[in-house]
Amino acid sequence: MDRKQLGQAMMALLGPDKVLTEELDLLYYSYDSSFHARNHRFVPDIVVTPQSTEEVSQIMQYAYTHGIPVTPRGAGSGETCGSVAVQGGIVMDLSKWQTIEEIDTANMQVLVRPGVIHANLNKELAKYGLFFPPDPGSTRMCTIGGMIANNSSGLRAVKYGTTEQYILGLEVVLPDGRVITTGGIKSRAIKNVSGLNLTKLFVGSEGTLGVITKARIRVWPKPKARGILMAVFPKLEDAPAAVLDVYQGGILPSGIEILDESAIQAVNMYKPEINLPNAQAILIFEVDGNPASVEYEGNRIAEIVKPRTSQVEWSTEPKRMAQLWEGRGVVATAAARVREDGSRVFAGEDISVPLAKVADTLRAIRSLGDKYGVRVVNYGHIGDGNVHTAPVIDPELPEEVERANQLADAIHRLAIEMNGSTTGEHGVGYVRARYAPLEHGPAVDVMAAIKQTLDPKGIMNPLKVFLPEEGINSVS
Amino acid sequence: MDRKQLGQAMMALLGPDKVLTEELDLLYYSYDSSFHARNHRFVPDIVVTPQSTEEVSQIMQYAYTHGIPVTPRGAGSGETCGSVAVQGGIVMDLSKWQTIEEIDTANMQVLVRPGVIHANLNKELAKYGLFFPPDPGSTRMCTIGGMIANNSSGLRAVKYGTTEQYILGLEVVLPDGRVITTGGIKSRAIKNVSGLNLTKLFVGSEGTLGVITKARIRVWPKPKARGILMAVFPKLEDAPAAVLDVYQGGILPSGIEILDESAIQAVNMYKPEINLPNAQAILIFEVDGNPASVEYEGNRIAEIVKPRTSQVEWSTEPKRMAQLWEGRGVVATAAARVREDGSRVFAGEDISVPLAKVADTLRAIRSLGDKYGVRVVNYGHIGDGNVHTAPVIDPELPEEVERANQLADAIHRLAIEMNGSTTGEHGVGYVRARYAPLEHGPAVDVMAAIKQTLDPKGIMNPLKVFLPEEGINSVS
Repeated sequence: MDRKQLGQAMMALLGPDKVLTEELDLLYYSYDSSFHARNHRFVPDIVVTPQSTEEVSQIMQYAYTHGIPVTPRGAGSGETCGSVAVQGGIVMDLSKWQTIEEIDTANMQVLVRPGVIHANLNKELAKYGLFFPPDPGSTRMCTIGGMIANNSSGLRAVKYGTTEQYILGLEVVLPDGRVITTGGIKSRAIKNVSGLNLTKLFVGSEGTLGVITKARIRVWPKPKARGILMAVFPKLEDAPAAVLDVYQGGILPSGIEILDESAIQAVNMYKPEINLPNAQAILIFEVDGNPASVEYEGNRIAEIVKPRTSQVEWSTEPKRMAQLWEGRGVVATAAARVREDGSRVFAGEDISVPLAKVADTLRAIRSLGDKYGVRVVNYGHIGDGNVHTAPVIDPELPEEVERANQLADAIHRLAIEMNGSTTGEHGVGYVRARYAPLEHGPAVDVMAAIKQTLDPKGIMNPLKVFLPEEGINSVS
Repeated sequence: MDRKQLGQAMMALLGPDKVLTEELDLLYYSYDSSFHARNHRFVPDIVVTPQSTEEVSQIMQYAYTHGIPVTPRGAGSGETCGSVAVQGGIVMDLSKWQTIEEIDTANMQVLVRPGVIHANLNKELAKYGLFFPPDPGSTRMCTIGGMIANNSSGLRAVKYGTTEQYILGLEVVLPDGRVITTGGIKSRAIKNVSGLNLTKLFVGSEGTLGVITKARIRVWPKPKARGILMAVFPKLEDAPAAVLDVYQGGILPSGIEILDESAIQAVNMYKPEINLPNAQAILIFEVDGNPASVEYEGNRIAEIVKPRTSQVEWSTEPKRMAQLWEGRGVVATAAARVREDGSRVFAGEDISVPLAKVADTLRAIRSLGDKYGVRVVNYGHIGDGNVHTAPVIDPELPEEVERANQLADAIHRLAIEMNGSTTGEHGVGYVRARYAPLEHGPAVDVMAAIKQTLDPKGIMNPLKVFLPEEGINSVS
C-alpha cells in the first residue's frame, strides 16, 4: 500500500499527534514479548493511537474501504505475536486510552477504556474494597483491552476463573466501522441471558473480529485475608495427587503453584539463600477469604497433603508468607539464569493439561528437552493444569533457536496428545495459529465462517488464532 | 409439509420407537411451562427422540435438505416458548438421552448427554464430594441440555455464576448435520484459550445455532457447611442497601433472596403458621463454605445488616435453617393463592436490574400491577438483581389474560429502562424475542449475521432469541 497516502489519510482523521510514521517508531511496534518476534520483525506501515470510539470507527471505515489490515495492540506484552502486524498495515495502539470511566460501586461493576493497566485498575478498586480477580503476571504492564482480547488469567484462575467470567458487556467497533454494544445497550445488569452471547465471543478473539473500545466489568469484594502453604514432595506424582486430595477435601485454594526439580534447582542456583529443599516437586498453595476461613483451610490443606510430603509449612504472617512465596516469585527470573550464556525464551510456555496428566507431561517435557538439547525449567499453575516451561538457550545462535523452535513445536503437540490445550492463558496469536486444526478439528470451519461473516475482507488482525487456509470450507 | 412423508423418513432413520406422530403425543409437545403456551398451542408435525450423535446428525441432514424447522427440547420446563415449534416441523426431544458418560473425578469434570436431569447429576456427583453449582428451581425436572441452551442459573448465581462458566466444551450438531466439538476435540483441559470461544457462543443460544449432543462440564468441591440468615427491613430501600453493605464488607454469600411486602403477605395468607413479620422487605442470606467460614460470615452479615433491620436471625442448625428458609421456599406456591380464583402466570417473571435500582423497580412493578389491575407478588434473587414477579390472574378470562400480557410487556420495558435485562435466567425464547432490538440495538444485526452463517436456511428453532425481521441488515 501507499504509506504516504495512508499517513495523510490518518493525519486527516486523527491529527498529527495520534499518527506515527517514522521508521524508528514503527520498529518499536514490530515485536511483542514473544520468542518469535525476537527472530522475526513485523514492521507496520503506520501506527495510530485513537482515544475515542469515533476515532476507532473512522480508522476502521477507512481501512475497510481500502482493504488495509488493522492490528489492535495494548501494551505489547503478549507472547504469541498477537499484537504485531504480520501482514503490515495499521497497528492500532490502544494503550494510551487509559480512562476508567466509572467505578459503579453500587452495582459492583466498572466501565473502562481498553488502555487501562490492570494494576492501576485494581489500585483504584481497592479504595472501595473491590477487585478484578484475574491476575496475569504482567499486571503492571498489560492493558484491560489486551486481557479481554486474550481472555487472560494467572495463578488465581483456579478459584476465580479467567477474564471472560467478569466481562458483562463490551463496546466493539466492527471491521467496517460500525459500533455495537454487547450485553445490552443500556444494561448494568449482573445477570443477563438475553440474546446470543456476543460478549463472550469477542472475549478471547484476539482482535480478529473487531476492536474493543469499552468494557463493562464485574468486580468482587476483595478478600480480607490470605495465607500461604508450602509442601515438599519427594515424588513428582504425589504433587498432582495432593492437589486432587485437597479438592476432594472440599477446598478450592485461590492458587496452587508447582516448581518441579528443574525449577527448584534453578531457584537454588540463582539465589542460594532461598535454599529450597531438594525434592521432585514443591507445591505452594495460596488460600484467601475471610480470616476464619483462611485459617481453617490452611490447616486442612496441611493435614490433607502431609502423608505425601517430606515437609509442610503454613503461614498467614506476612513476612513468612513472602519467604514461602519467594521460590515461586523468583522462578521466572531464575530460569533465565540456569545458563550463563542463556536466556529464557517464551515458546511452548503455557500449555494446559488435565490435572491427572501433569506429572507425565512434566516428565515428557524434560525428555523432549533432552532430545532437542535444550535445558528446560518447569513451573506453573498446577491447580488448573497450566504448565509453564521455560526453554533456556542462547538466542544469538541460529542453531539453538532452531532447536528451541522444534522443542516448542513438540511441546504444543504433546499438550494436545495429553488431552490438553496449546495455550492455557497466553493466547494463540500468530505462533500457535497453525495448531488450530489439530486442536479443534472441524470447529475451525465454524470459527472461519464467523470470522468471514464479521470481517469479510479479512482486515482484522489477519493470520491470528487460526490460518485462513485451514478454514476454507465455510459452514453455510 | 407432508407429514406422512416426514414420518416415513424419520421412521426409516430412527425406527418406530423414536418417532411420535399421534395427535395426542404431538399435543403434549405443543407447550412448555410458559403463560404464552397456555394461550397458544404450537403443534409440531412430528416428534423424534434420538439417542446418539449419529441419529441427531441424520435428522438434521434430512431437515436441512428439506428445509424443515427443528426445535430441540429438553424437559419442556421453560417459561418462554423456547422449546415449542412455533413454525411447526420437527420437535427433537432430547430428554430421553440421559447418559452420564463419565465422572472424571481426577480432572474435576463430567461428560454428559443432553437429557441428564440436573438433580440426578448432582446426586451422582455428591458421591465424590463434587457438585455442579448452578441451581435452577426446576432442578428435579430440567435437563442439562436445556440448562446449557438457556444458560440457566438460580439463587446461587450470586457466588457461583451461571451455567456458562462451567461448560468446558460441547459436541454440537450443526444445522446441516455436521458435528463439531468445541473447546478442543481431545481436550480435558480446565484452562484453555485457544480458538474463538464457540463453547460460550452455543451456551445460551437456545437451540438456534445447533443441537447440543454432549457437554463437558467443570465441577467443584461441594461445600461442607451452610447457614441461613433472615433479616427483616421496615423500609424497602434498606434491603438492597444492606446487600451492598454486605458485599462491601468483603462477603459474597451463596444466595441473597428478597420477599417484598406483597410476598410476605402472600406467604402469611397461604401458611399463617409461618407468620413472617410484617415489613416492607425480608432478606434471606445463604452462606456456604467450610464450617469456620460459614460461622464467621453469618455473624459478620448479622452485624453489618443490623442497623437497617428490625429483626435478624442467623442459624446453622438444620431444622432452624429450614424454618428460616420456609418463607422463601413457599413463596412461589403462595403467590398463586393470593386470589382464590387466580393462578400465578409466568410472564415478565425474571427481569434483572442493577442492585441500585431494585427498590425502584419493585415499586414500579407494583404500580404497574395497579395500573393494569393485576395483583403481583414480588420476590427473587436480589443479590444479582434478578426479580421474580408473579402476576396472579384468572387465566380463563380473556380480559384478564389481555391485562396480564400488557403488564408483562410493561415489565419487560421497565427492565430495559432501569438499565436491566428482559431476562435474567429464563431465556428469551419466543416471548421476549421482540425486545431484542430495544435491548441490544445494532448488536442484533451481528447476532442475525452469525445465525445466518450457521443456519442459512433458518431451520434451527426459528423465531427464538430475536426475530428475523429485526436482523435483516447483515454485517457483511
